[in-house]
Amino acid sequence: MDKIKIAICGYGNLGKGIESEIPKSKDMELVAIFTRRNPESLVTKSSVPIININDINNWKDKIDVVIMCGGSATDLPNQVPEIAKSFNTVDSFDTHAKIPEYYNTVNESALVGNKTSIISGGWDPGMFSLMRLYADSILKNGFTYTFWGKGVSQGHSDAIRRISGVKNAIQYTIPIEKAMDRVRNGENPDLQTNEKHLRECFVAAEEGANKEKIEKEIKTMPNYFADYNTIVHFISEEELKQKHSKMSHGGFVIHSGETGEGNKQIIEYSLKLDSNPEFTASVLIALARANYRMNRNGQYGAKTIFDIPPVLLSEKTPEELRKQLL
Amino acid sequence: MDKIKIAICGYGNLGKGIESEIPKSKDMELVAIFTRRNPESLVTKSSVPIININDINNWKDKIDVVIMCGGSATDLPNQVPEIAKSFNTVDSFDTHAKIPEYYNTVNESALVGNKTSIISGGWDPGMFSLMRLYADSILKNGFTYTFWGKGVSQGHSDAIRRISGVKNAIQYTIPIEKAMDRVRNGENPDLQTNEKHLRECFVAAEEGANKEKIEKEIKTMPNYFADYNTIVHFISEEELKQKHSKMSHGGFVIHSGETGEGNKQIIEYSLKLDSNPEFTASVLIALARANYRMNRNGQYGAKTIFDIPPVLLSEKTPEELRKQLL
Repeated sequence: MDKIKIAICGYGNLGKGIESEIPKSKDMELVAIFTRRNPESLVTKSSVPIININDINNWKDKIDVVIMCGGSATDLPNQVPEIAKSFNTVDSFDTHAKIPEYYNTVNESALVGNKTSIISGGWDPGMFSLMRLYADSILKNGFTYTFWGKGVSQGHSDAIRRISGVKNAIQYTIPIEKAMDRVRNGENPDLQTNEKHLRECFVAAEEGANKEKIEKEIKTMPNYFADYNTIVHFISEEELKQKHSKMSHGGFVIHSGETGEGNKQIIEYSLKLDSNPEFTASVLIALARANYRMNRNGQYGAKTIFDIPPVLLSEKTPEELRKQLL
Repeated sequence: MDKIKIAICGYGNLGKGIESEIPKSKDMELVAIFTRRNPESLVTKSSVPIININDINNWKDKIDVVIMCGGSATDLPNQVPEIAKSFNTVDSFDTHAKIPEYYNTVNESALVGNKTSIISGGWDPGMFSLMRLYADSILKNGFTYTFWGKGVSQGHSDAIRRISGVKNAIQYTIPIEKAMDRVRNGENPDLQTNEKHLRECFVAAEEGANKEKIEKEIKTMPNYFADYNTIVHFISEEELKQKHSKMSHGGFVIHSGETGEGNKQIIEYSLKLDSNPEFTASVLIALARANYRMNRNGQYGAKTIFDIPPVLLSEKTPEELRKQLL
């Protein structure tokens, strides 16, 4: 059997996750890594060719799906509409508010060369979106709540690091158990984001820095912390490195609906992830399999996880799936 | 807009659930209820025609999808292969071991008249199967565990009722929290069904019956109880009726996988249902929507929830879904 030929575009945490997880799929092989950096400067684990992204068009007939591993702020919006003209792509574009616009742009590009582009894969958007859709389709008049965490928020960690006197910092978003329990009880509470999450910060301060001032500056920072219950711990830089460098994350989608005469029906989905980028990579790999199959089946243009028959994600045959998992 | 015309076949708990939930879907209408009983003997909540199942073929052009609400033991295997020749059908066939054979039979029938039959919908098989598939496709080399309950097992309740001296009884299957926690911790334990569940029985005995003997007979019953930790309570028939007549159920699908160098990744899906038949009905209604769309799209034959692009289950447009739920 011919294996599905996968390329990685962008060798950060996500790209490394793809590289580490691809070998677990027996129907796939990694064939190239594309980078904006000087290819010779890249040290990778696998031995596939490392190519400058500007030379990607030389690879047109050698790749089935390119997994785009850049960031949503600037990388993906710039790269995908170009690359999607000549390659099937999968990405994890996660700026929720801009998804409709992004979808339209990528769709136009992919249709140019009869290619298929699956956008916004991963866990949120991605698996969490799917859970929202399934629950909303089944239990009408219900309410869906998404809680994130416990996990690191890069944006909030960066915001702390910009405060004068701060050497390094990590911020965890933590879902508030009490709020989750109200949802699980079917109370359908009206909850703002700050009523659903609290923020816990671990800060390594510079020697002699005024910790009281730093703590106040964090807790009163508009948008990021001011509206939240925020907890600040000062620890040493070593402890920060030792105990808080795992890229763990997770979250909950809870849907509460009602049927008949007041019968409560609760659906809950949760993820507890030791490695956020490796889990996201694992989802993107399954999406790449579906992408390959949809493209061969003539389904061109932009697609999302909503459009994919689940059977296409699995390495198993439809017969095996019906027998083993249905 | 033309509404999707739905018929119910079989007016038990599930059929009544379909009847109560259909009005929540603005794109659907209930047009008929088919029964094996004398139609005049049936008291229904809605005012749609009640028709004897033998006359179903007179309704060929008046129905888009028939939701089959009979049991898996004899009703569905007899009815669906016949009805699927002339109607799109959705059912909840749940004898896991016989699904492959049932699929083939229904597939042949549905292809005769270019119809579409979605089999084995509901929550297990159904939503739980989907969760097993998604988890298994994403996290390779992982382990999936399904726990059922807390909920009533009809088979086990019936088995108790057959014991001499028992007036009435209800049996709850209860997942063992300790076993679930081991799975959630990523221990991948090797668990037999009796290590995952305990059985709690509420029994109303006949006056003067030997309760000790009944309890022993329950606890030593092969296959049903002998291998399990079984708890027996004797209560009055009134209390049984009052406190144990809700058709609540639920369960958990927990998948534990590993990525990279020992990073644990846990996916958990759970249902807490006040009404098992109304929830199953809600799933079948969403499947009926997908069925209608797939059939119009030329996708004939037997299908399962694995084959359905999630977007087809929702009343919302793809644009709305991308904007609101992705």
